[in-house]
Amino acid sequence: MTDTNEMIGAVPGGVPLGARAVASAIDACLRCVQSCTTCANADLAEDDVVEMRRCIAQCLDCADVCDATARLLSRPAYSELAVIHPLLQACVRACTSSAEECARHAPHHAHCAVCERVCRACVGACTALLGAEAFAALR
Amino acid sequence: MTDTNEMIGAVPGGVPLGARAVASAIDACLRCVQSCTTCANADLAEDDVVEMRRCIAQCLDCADVCDATARLLSRPAYSELAVIHPLLQACVRACTSSAEECARHAPHHAHCAVCERVCRACVGACTALLGAEAFAALR
Amino acid sequence: MTDTNEMIGAVPGGVPLGARAVASAIDACLRCVQSCTTCANADLAEDDVVEMRRCIAQCLDCADVCDATARLLSRPAYSELAVIHPLLQACVRACTSSAEECARHAPHHAHCAVCERVCRACVGACTALLGAEAFAALR
Amino acid sequence: MTDTNEMIGAVPGGVPLGARAVASAIDACLRCVQSCTTCANADLAEDDVVEMRRCIAQCLDCADVCDATARLLSRPAYSELAVIHPLLQACVRACTSSAEECARHAPHHAHCAVCERVCRACVGACTALLGAEAFAALR
Repeated sequence: MTDTNEMIGAVPGGVPLGARAVASAIDACLRCVQSCTTCANADLAEDDVVEMRRCIAQCLDCADVCDATARLLSRPAYSELAVIHPLLQACVRACTSSAEECARHAPHHAHCAVCERVCRACVGACTALLGAEAFAALR
Repeated sequence: MTDTNEMIGAVPGGVPLGARAVASAIDACLRCVQSCTTCANADLAEDDVVEMRRCIAQCLDCADVCDATARLLSRPAYSELAVIHPLLQACVRACTSSAEECARHAPHHAHCAVCERVCRACVGACTALLGAEAFAALR
Repeated sequence: MTDTNEMIGAVPGGVPLGARAVASAIDACLRCVQSCTTCANADLAEDDVVEMRRCIAQCLDCADVCDATARLLSRPAYSELAVIHPLLQACVRACTSSAEECARHAPHHAHCAVCERVCRACVGACTALLGAEAFAALR
Repeated sequence: MTDTNEMIGAVPGGVPLGARAVASAIDACLRCVQSCTTCANADLAEDDVVEMRRCIAQCLDCADVCDATARLLSRPAYSELAVIHPLLQACVRACTSSAEECARHAPHHAHCAVCERVCRACVGACTALLGAEAFAALR
């Protein structure tokens, strides 16, 4: 059991979206903050920086949305599903865009290949969470 | 003209959502990061902290969503409306909840009265932005 | 009196570093988060992006350090001066570097001219706070 | 090899503080953002919230400092050691305080026990990084 699982499982009152799914999404988001922040920095230092501008901008946006998503998911007590739902949608959209842009550069930049993989994992974890029963009333 | 207006107006390529409306929303979000962060801290130090738990949690969530929103709006070049739209919706919802909870405590806590006002201003600025012509295709 | 002044002044228990000086530093830091985030984005869209790499990277670092500094200063209750002191030092150093790099590009990029001014204002506000009597024991 | 190791190792130009030590510190900081954010939220929902106020405030500060530290360490290209050094000092101090406060509550709150452990790991990783040869000139 990861630290995140243990932490989320220890919050009094329970976790309406499911502790395991929430912990997975938090971990995926934090990994995405990391990979996107470093990918943007590495892009900047590449010889073909002119071709990497969109990748830099989208990775920075993705990192910030994932950071906020990880923070809100990390607070299950007194949380509001009506805030989390559109935030997860923004997160899935940002991660998808980063993944697609990184995919274009993955053949020649190792950081883009890793970042694409991490972004797609975050899309998967957040999409799974959006399918939670607790969100049914909001769909 | 504020610094934010000048900064946003100086980004090459223009601002699809409108420079003035974007600058107003950024400033409103950053003020909300400030007021919500301090409101949560002040709540914690009040004698009636037991009654302030929901206010603390919602203000913390609101600060984080406003922070991410201010950051993404501050990057008009290479930005993606399909990310910004749900993020603004999350922001309006978080600010509305904080404002409503702060309103309950405003009669006896000065920080809640100020925070309610700042949150409502942010709801206004972000709602105005959601009405931008550029979002028409996403609605 | 600004919202920040009102908020900080309303925190129970007082503000060891002085409410007015803390509020000024918070406002300066949040303006710096804004200007540095937009400056990095505008740099990316300039024709001379190759010359702007250091400016982009330093502005991103500056925005993140200012964001954390604004948040910690916004929580005077139960705060710890031994954390705030080195954080303010990191903030002064990051803002100084951003200001100096922006100064090199200010003649040809309006966003760098504004960002330099905002960064220098933040250096001033944080340096003033580092001189607070309450920090004497840590120097 | 973790994703973080791979990402940091792929940044052009090398990593003055050492790729492996930097990656370890980033991962430790991001885990601390997670545990401290959830610990503060769980504290809020406990029956003894009145006794948990300091723990909540210190965990929130710790999460924000660790977040900024993880972000700056994730940008080795064009980074400035004179900013990172005091930021790491702030991080070690914030994590130490959170760990000590959580330790007081660990016997009766499982989230405090986990959070103490995560904070101490972050103290270890950041202290190790502060000992890097590249910082010698700043000491």
